[in-house]
Amino acid sequence: MARELRITAVRVTPIAFRDGPLLNAAGIHEPWALRAIVELESSDGRVGIAETYGDAPMLRALEQAAPLATGLSPFDLNRMEARVHASIRPAPGAVEFELAPGSHSAKNAAKVASAFEVAMLDLQGQLLGAPVVALLGGPVRDRVPYSAYLFFKHAEHIERPYAPDAWGEAHTPAQIVAQARRMIELYGFRSIKLKGGVFEPAHEVECMRALHAAFPGLPLRLDPNANWSLAASIAAAPALDEVLEYYEDPTPGLAGMAELAKHTKLPLATNMVITTLDEFRRGAESGAVKVLLSDHHYWGGLRVTQTLARMCALWDLGMSMHSNSHLGTSLIAMTHVAASIPNLTYACDTHYPWQEEEVIEGGRIRFEDGAVRVPDGPGLGVTLDRAKLAELHAQYLACGLRQRDDLAQMKKYDPTFTGRTPRF
Amino acid sequence: MARELRITAVRVTPIAFRDGPLLNAAGIHEPWALRAIVELESSDGRVGIAETYGDAPMLRALEQAAPLATGLSPFDLNRMEARVHASIRPAPGAVEFELAPGSHSAKNAAKVASAFEVAMLDLQGQLLGAPVVALLGGPVRDRVPYSAYLFFKHAEHIERPYAPDAWGEAHTPAQIVAQARRMIELYGFRSIKLKGGVFEPAHEVECMRALHAAFPGLPLRLDPNANWSLAASIAAAPALDEVLEYYEDPTPGLAGMAELAKHTKLPLATNMVITTLDEFRRGAESGAVKVLLSDHHYWGGLRVTQTLARMCALWDLGMSMHSNSHLGTSLIAMTHVAASIPNLTYACDTHYPWQEEEVIEGGRIRFEDGAVRVPDGPGLGVTLDRAKLAELHAQYLACGLRQRDDLAQMKKYDPTFTGRTPRF
Repeated sequence: MARELRITAVRVTPIAFRDGPLLNAAGIHEPWALRAIVELESSDGRVGIAETYGDAPMLRALEQAAPLATGLSPFDLNRMEARVHASIRPAPGAVEFELAPGSHSAKNAAKVASAFEVAMLDLQGQLLGAPVVALLGGPVRDRVPYSAYLFFKHAEHIERPYAPDAWGEAHTPAQIVAQARRMIELYGFRSIKLKGGVFEPAHEVECMRALHAAFPGLPLRLDPNANWSLAASIAAAPALDEVLEYYEDPTPGLAGMAELAKHTKLPLATNMVITTLDEFRRGAESGAVKVLLSDHHYWGGLRVTQTLARMCALWDLGMSMHSNSHLGTSLIAMTHVAASIPNLTYACDTHYPWQEEEVIEGGRIRFEDGAVRVPDGPGLGVTLDRAKLAELHAQYLACGLRQRDDLAQMKKYDPTFTGRTPRF
Repeated sequence: MARELRITAVRVTPIAFRDGPLLNAAGIHEPWALRAIVELESSDGRVGIAETYGDAPMLRALEQAAPLATGLSPFDLNRMEARVHASIRPAPGAVEFELAPGSHSAKNAAKVASAFEVAMLDLQGQLLGAPVVALLGGPVRDRVPYSAYLFFKHAEHIERPYAPDAWGEAHTPAQIVAQARRMIELYGFRSIKLKGGVFEPAHEVECMRALHAAFPGLPLRLDPNANWSLAASIAAAPALDEVLEYYEDPTPGLAGMAELAKHTKLPLATNMVITTLDEFRRGAESGAVKVLLSDHHYWGGLRVTQTLARMCALWDLGMSMHSNSHLGTSLIAMTHVAASIPNLTYACDTHYPWQEEEVIEGGRIRFEDGAVRVPDGPGLGVTLDRAKLAELHAQYLACGLRQRDDLAQMKKYDPTFTGRTPRF
């Protein structure tokens, strides 16, 4: 029986793919985004896959944890989690590595457990002939809606390492509206998020109002990534009141968000002040936030995301989903878990439209009316394109980047840029 | 593929089996315990089973909910839960039915969802060739320890409906010690629980101290079922301090338990003041309890029990498991979920030794050194003995009981018994 199979090998392949010159609170995206493809091989030669962070500290954590998965059954999710959490502990006082910006320093053990869990569920699904969502209690929706994730951006990277992307510059309200129009035409998204924290708050508010005028009725979100002071966040709130469905992390810290909540009718959302179950315990009653952005990559996996969903329902918090730059394996894992959660009531964030490359067979995943159909084949329903994997790994080796650093990249454009937050 | 199967029929069979004259806070067990066997039949003729309460209000709730499961895939746990919770709502102001004593008025929807979930997981496991525990992330232990669950009892029922059981009378410390000795000899249990709330607290404390003397080193628990006043609970605490591993629900209410907690070093345990996830939200920070007793039958199922376990870990609460009178299908479901939970660190409660009858093939489940081995066959690993099911259903029809009423039964012995709590 399938359960007698064992995980015989853990392979981690760092990859790099082209990424746009996207601006954010920490600086600007580098020309290459880093990810890692995790492969768990079973004793019958099957391979389960997951996609996660590709920064050097994550690669070290995965390397350290590889022996913890080896020898387990693909069904041993609970034993795997227990082993990983018991083994990957930060030294006392150590600061866990930050995947700036927006991903935060969640626990390394949770990140590793998540990658292993997704690959093990992929193996389980292949062995059982069931899609991952069926192993998560089945879908409550057949398609998962994503939002159009807009960025302020330059037309091309300062290094000009490859031809500029097709999106052009986006600094002004008109350019942001044009970016939204193009993205919606291409993919059919039915809600819009703007990554803010880049220009003066008044300018970003003007962009949101322009989007509101251009796309009446479409839910809008603004995420200044905690780059606004409390005063600036309060000052901007009235102009956003009738424009946003939620106001995401305008200002730093639980206390700041709680104070801001007293000054706005907008639900506040976060992936910064509550990023672990333990922070949930400490922050859920604070009144600071009304919407949590889940992210299986750092919350600890698909099952922990389901636990978080039940907790959000209990604490009357809405639930959305956060994203970093990623490829299709992550998108599909997000889609499986999002399909299983009744109270994931907001369209999920995804950076996917900003990527052009892919590492899975069949190439880029398609959006239909802004949504991704939940695969019904075995496991995740995606498999690796080995040639593409080799190509993207070669790019990793060649690009020289080993840890994301939006601040250092920004200093190439503006040597006076400090990255100090909140900037506004 | 298996996922295209549908649930075509829901069968609910109420059963009655012999139960001892066990004393508790509410009164005394009647000669027959009621349960229901729930069968979900799939379109390929397989049957998934669960065991739950057999009281009339539960049978009505199951009947009402049957169409909600019909037509679903056995993998549609999330859709089933959503449907059941949307459909089974108490009328405003209505009091949900109580399964006195000790089981409490958890939400009917959670009880129904639990029964359906267990039967659906049984079907999934059969279809996939995997034990239920594998569908819950796999076992973290191969055997689940249970505790010796002692009761004060009479030698036989007042009606003498059948020959008295082999356990005899247990009123005195010596009789309780003898009961423990017999139960441990038969089953090998390595911890002991006494259901209290029956005699004067001083008498019950004396019993615990006698057990402590007779079984040095064995963890002991006392559960007066909220039948002691706060003052009596505080007064009894010092004599129990070095005797108990936890002090379970001595006094009613969260406020009373929180006050008691200030007066004892003993961890307080409960299956009375926190019995739902919503009560957990409101009570977890109260300091009232340090150990929660889970029970998949009323918390909402095996997966909700896993969620509860993660929440207990977050809030630094210990976790044990509660039981009502039950047969092997419940015992095995408890064993699957308990095997999957790393932080279920206490031996689970079970009434199983008090039952003599069985409804599953192969008869009574065996304890080895006080533990039940987690089955590794497909699904729950137990199947119905149709002849026994018919026999126990016939007993249900013949016995005349339709809703457990320990108070009315007690009045047959003592017409002055009021059931008022706390009695002491």
